[in-house]
Amino acid sequence: MEEVVELYRKNGGEVKDFRKFDGTPDIGYRIQYEKKICEVDVQMFGLVSGDLNPVHFDDGVASKTKFGGRVAHGMLTTSLVSAAVARMPGLIVLLETHFRYTAPVRVGDTVRVVGEVVEKENNRYRLDVKCYAGEKVVVEGWVTVLSW
Amino acid sequence: MEEVVELYRKNGGEVKDFRKFDGTPDIGYRIQYEKKICEVDVQMFGLVSGDLNPVHFDDGVASKTKFGGRVAHGMLTTSLVSAAVARMPGLIVLLETHFRYTAPVRVGDTVRVVGEVVEKENNRYRLDVKCYAGEKVVVEGWVTVLSW
Repeated sequence: MEEVVELYRKNGGEVKDFRKFDGTPDIGYRIQYEKKICEVDVQMFGLVSGDLNPVHFDDGVASKTKFGGRVAHGMLTTSLVSAAVARMPGLIVLLETHFRYTAPVRVGDTVRVVGEVVEKENNRYRLDVKCYAGEKVVVEGWVTVLSW
Repeated sequence: MEEVVELYRKNGGEVKDFRKFDGTPDIGYRIQYEKKICEVDVQMFGLVSGDLNPVHFDDGVASKTKFGGRVAHGMLTTSLVSAAVARMPGLIVLLETHFRYTAPVRVGDTVRVVGEVVEKENNRYRLDVKCYAGEKVVVEGWVTVLSW
């Protein structure tokens, strides 16, 4: 892991501490998490997934689209939701996700994930989720998780 | 990018060609894509997202869970769906996703994504999607995409 972390950091990637959120999740429990999307994030996400869609990698192609330039992978943005819910108390396991991708995210944007528990059944939680780049909603949806 | 690719390859990551699928998408159009999930994928996905959930990184913690050992991030598995739909003809943009995570994926598993167009409206497609590890369904859901 050290070698990968070193390269990531050297390329400007933001290494986040994995700190758990406080409190006891119940209806109305809110979470927030943010991370900067860097070039190295787009590169690593592209390699890991195999999604080398030119809209994420090729300025020439991307500049001719409605986006007017390269954008980060939508699922790179929503990977931050995984990181956000993982910070809830307990050992968190993802069960279900639903996301609408409403606006593009660019390299250099800081994405902020905001979530709120809207249903609870024993150790199973459903959270409504929004991701923001600045004041703009870039993703909205919901997730259900188990807390072990 | 070269430096990241080199480290990825050196650590056993599977670098995929970005080749477009043939044909003209319509109802019934099928796609298939597979990729091996390696340790370096879990590491990079953890860094990029900031999801360092011990169930993905800590054998001691993960072995005490129902999973009986470390598992890959669910959203690492579904990132392969992004790569799969990106290989459809046209420039593909993700609009909406819905996934249920039905079984764990381990490091070393090859995940196979199978999708089928079930709705088409102009250049907008909805695909039903399943991800398999071996014969086991690990994710099921659907995505909608635009083809520019």
